[in-house]
Amino acid sequence: MNRRFILNILGKIMLIEAGLMLLPMLVAAIYREKHVYFAFGIPIAMLAVLGALFVSVKVYSRTIFARDGYVMVAAAWIVLSFFGALPFTFSNQIPHLVDSFFETVSGFTTTGASILTNVEALSKSMLFWRSFTHWIGGMGVLVFMLAIIPLTNGSGSLQLVRAESTGPDVGKLVPKTTQSARILYMIYGALTVIEFVLLIAGKMPVFDAVCVTFGTAGTGGFGVLNSSVASYGVFCQIVITVFMLLFGVNFSIFYLILCGRVKDALKSEELRVYLAVYFAAALIITINIRNMYESFSQSALAGFFQTSSIMTTTGFSTVDFDAWPELSRYVLLLIMCIGSCAGSTGGGIKISRLCILVKSAQKEIRCLLHPRSVNVVRFEKRRISDKIVNTTHVYLILYVLIIGVSVFIVSFDNFDFTTTFSGVLATFNNIGPGLGKVGPTANYSGFSNLSKLVFSLDMLLGRLEIFPIIMLFNPALLKNYRIRKTKISVTD
Amino acid sequence: MNRRFILNILGKIMLIEAGLMLLPMLVAAIYREKHVYFAFGIPIAMLAVLGALFVSVKVYSRTIFARDGYVMVAAAWIVLSFFGALPFTFSNQIPHLVDSFFETVSGFTTTGASILTNVEALSKSMLFWRSFTHWIGGMGVLVFMLAIIPLTNGSGSLQLVRAESTGPDVGKLVPKTTQSARILYMIYGALTVIEFVLLIAGKMPVFDAVCVTFGTAGTGGFGVLNSSVASYGVFCQIVITVFMLLFGVNFSIFYLILCGRVKDALKSEELRVYLAVYFAAALIITINIRNMYESFSQSALAGFFQTSSIMTTTGFSTVDFDAWPELSRYVLLLIMCIGSCAGSTGGGIKISRLCILVKSAQKEIRCLLHPRSVNVVRFEKRRISDKIVNTTHVYLILYVLIIGVSVFIVSFDNFDFTTTFSGVLATFNNIGPGLGKVGPTANYSGFSNLSKLVFSLDMLLGRLEIFPIIMLFNPALLKNYRIRKTKISVTD
Repeated sequence: MNRRFILNILGKIMLIEAGLMLLPMLVAAIYREKHVYFAFGIPIAMLAVLGALFVSVKVYSRTIFARDGYVMVAAAWIVLSFFGALPFTFSNQIPHLVDSFFETVSGFTTTGASILTNVEALSKSMLFWRSFTHWIGGMGVLVFMLAIIPLTNGSGSLQLVRAESTGPDVGKLVPKTTQSARILYMIYGALTVIEFVLLIAGKMPVFDAVCVTFGTAGTGGFGVLNSSVASYGVFCQIVITVFMLLFGVNFSIFYLILCGRVKDALKSEELRVYLAVYFAAALIITINIRNMYESFSQSALAGFFQTSSIMTTTGFSTVDFDAWPELSRYVLLLIMCIGSCAGSTGGGIKISRLCILVKSAQKEIRCLLHPRSVNVVRFEKRRISDKIVNTTHVYLILYVLIIGVSVFIVSFDNFDFTTTFSGVLATFNNIGPGLGKVGPTANYSGFSNLSKLVFSLDMLLGRLEIFPIIMLFNPALLKNYRIRKTKISVTD
Repeated sequence: MNRRFILNILGKIMLIEAGLMLLPMLVAAIYREKHVYFAFGIPIAMLAVLGALFVSVKVYSRTIFARDGYVMVAAAWIVLSFFGALPFTFSNQIPHLVDSFFETVSGFTTTGASILTNVEALSKSMLFWRSFTHWIGGMGVLVFMLAIIPLTNGSGSLQLVRAESTGPDVGKLVPKTTQSARILYMIYGALTVIEFVLLIAGKMPVFDAVCVTFGTAGTGGFGVLNSSVASYGVFCQIVITVFMLLFGVNFSIFYLILCGRVKDALKSEELRVYLAVYFAAALIITINIRNMYESFSQSALAGFFQTSSIMTTTGFSTVDFDAWPELSRYVLLLIMCIGSCAGSTGGGIKISRLCILVKSAQKEIRCLLHPRSVNVVRFEKRRISDKIVNTTHVYLILYVLIIGVSVFIVSFDNFDFTTTFSGVLATFNNIGPGLGKVGPTANYSGFSNLSKLVFSLDMLLGRLEIFPIIMLFNPALLKNYRIRKTKISVTD
């Protein structure tokens, strides 16, 4: 493992975080929240000093392998979350470190699960930082770094993008990784600005519009009001519905459209399945909750908004969907797991992975029917290699195992099954609110510290798509590291 | 597809069922239940006539392929269940056909889920038939037929055994399939007799002992009392605990022991994992429910009994485990899914499949760490072929999809999530009782007919391990059949 280079990159990321933290500092200055200056100042200083120290580590080789990429990304996200949590604790607005860590992990991983009973009690700068972490985490912080500075030689940068981006088979938009990262962030930025302008046009207060836009863009779901986004007008709710759906689309679709290849974009299998599942789920819910609302348009607004929010794993709410009939509640749980498209800012299993899983099952059944016929898995008109199919299978195995183990540990808290199960699904798939005692009107404050740490780990596992986190905590890696250390300590 | 041969075999199976139904007729005679004679008599006559008709179909070829085996087994089980349900309806003891079909499928698939509110209202002969279906279904009715008559040439018999037996990789105990089937039924019969004798020694009434033994042997769980087996003494409860655990063991282990290869038997990886999971789960539950019972031995008795009952997918109960703390309830849900060993009478994912899934995930992680190293999945000291690993993966995909779809349909009934979800798990994994409104003190009578049919299908999918049922309902099969019909109708 190229430890020196990993430390070097970590250092750069810490410097970037220090820079990004200047923004909430600016917000604090605007709203004259002098009491929080030190709460941001100290972490910024810590990040700057430690970051500079790490960056100064002498790097002999810039070559990295897939495993280095995974470890680097996992370590970066944990470090980011740790330092990102400090302002909340230093300002005493979220006193306990486990709570503030949970909240920050929830921010960066774009989950939007909160331990706060009263969001409105937070100062503006803290609210801004909380929502801003969504925006940073949405497209990924290493991708952001790559957009600014080219990092490694060879395929190193791609390893990093692979480890941080979502979906089973991460490619590049254009041959150069740095270029791809820039295009991604440009699309991301443009969509963010358009949504902000539309929300302002919908008469949303500027500060709220900034934070809600960050929450939508990252498919995070932190709001600035206790009622989430229920109190904003119908126009704003529709804007948010549409933009949540947009940020759940594979960003390469937008790139195709930008290049004028609209036809190709609309032919995307993933996009079609994504929209089909979305409209089917939204319609079922709209009809199922029809009697709970005065008019059809009201139930449609609630149904389409909530489906958009949950399926893209954002987690905003306009109504208490925990009070909905069982069918609608269950459809929400289902689309929590399905999630959004690969290469979007959303979480979940991802539409493309679901397609590959279903198609490989169909292939197996065809093989049983016609043992001698040649069967391959095709997706987006390309043949999916056995390697990717196998990795997708293993992804499902780990997905199921992680849910199984997480629910087991959280069960020690003795909450009812619906709460525990939906809590794990809502954090692991990066949604935020679940059902029962973690429903849209409730929060995660009632859980024990152990459960909060499990939820935090689940959020990281979900956002980084399992493998990086497993790599970081793999005992084999440590063993491998020790062997290397003794064997080639001179050359290393 | 060799339709003529499939019909021929179906005919033989119907004749066997007619024969087996003479037993409850005998019970009716013993207990002088004259009013049920016709209830058994008419189905027996129907089976005999139709069976004889099907057997008389001229068979030109006895060669079958894997898909024929699957279709044959699936069709046989549905036909068996349909005719097996008639006595309940004809005698008016379970008036509605959907209910009696549910109950009989639950019997044959060794699930033990019931729609009866008052089991004790059934006549003795009906209770006997209900429990006897467990015993028939446990080891499989086609395996039973193969034990009596050799059927096909070549690998045909093995195709049938493969389609009906449990586990990812079904082999034979001895080179000849018929011989293997005989040995299996001999072990099955011997264990059944021993349990019966022990229960009699424990002062259980003879009729109860017969039915409870059938329920244990098939890992079914139908009892003859409303209190399941709670009212029997501690000795009987311990006997049942041990025998449930035994019937959940891979029967090839017993064969090894019979051959004097005890050491080899104890080295079995599957056996070790099975026992490890069992004792871990039982201990966690015993400690977790300690405060609910007067003494440690009482909580241990309840904990070990219930773990044995649920993990082997039997479903007997001595206490209301739905009232247990969340952790214990969740552990029960977990071991419901894990299930027993391959090649046993139990259901669930099976220990061997779980091992293969976990190991193939570990392999994938190793591959990511050391991309150029050679990695294979090993189980029971053998290398597991990529084909079996892939089929096991697909099994998990279908397993998750079926649960997802089933819960969706049952959600229309608007029961709470714990009830719906545990109901699907309890039927699909062939346990019987679940949690909430399908808990050990409740039953499935409250669901709609649609849900009852979904549950029935889930029970069949679970017992026959998904593929046969999917084959039977596969539209491609029908298409294939049509093409064949037009193309080679002369030779067929």
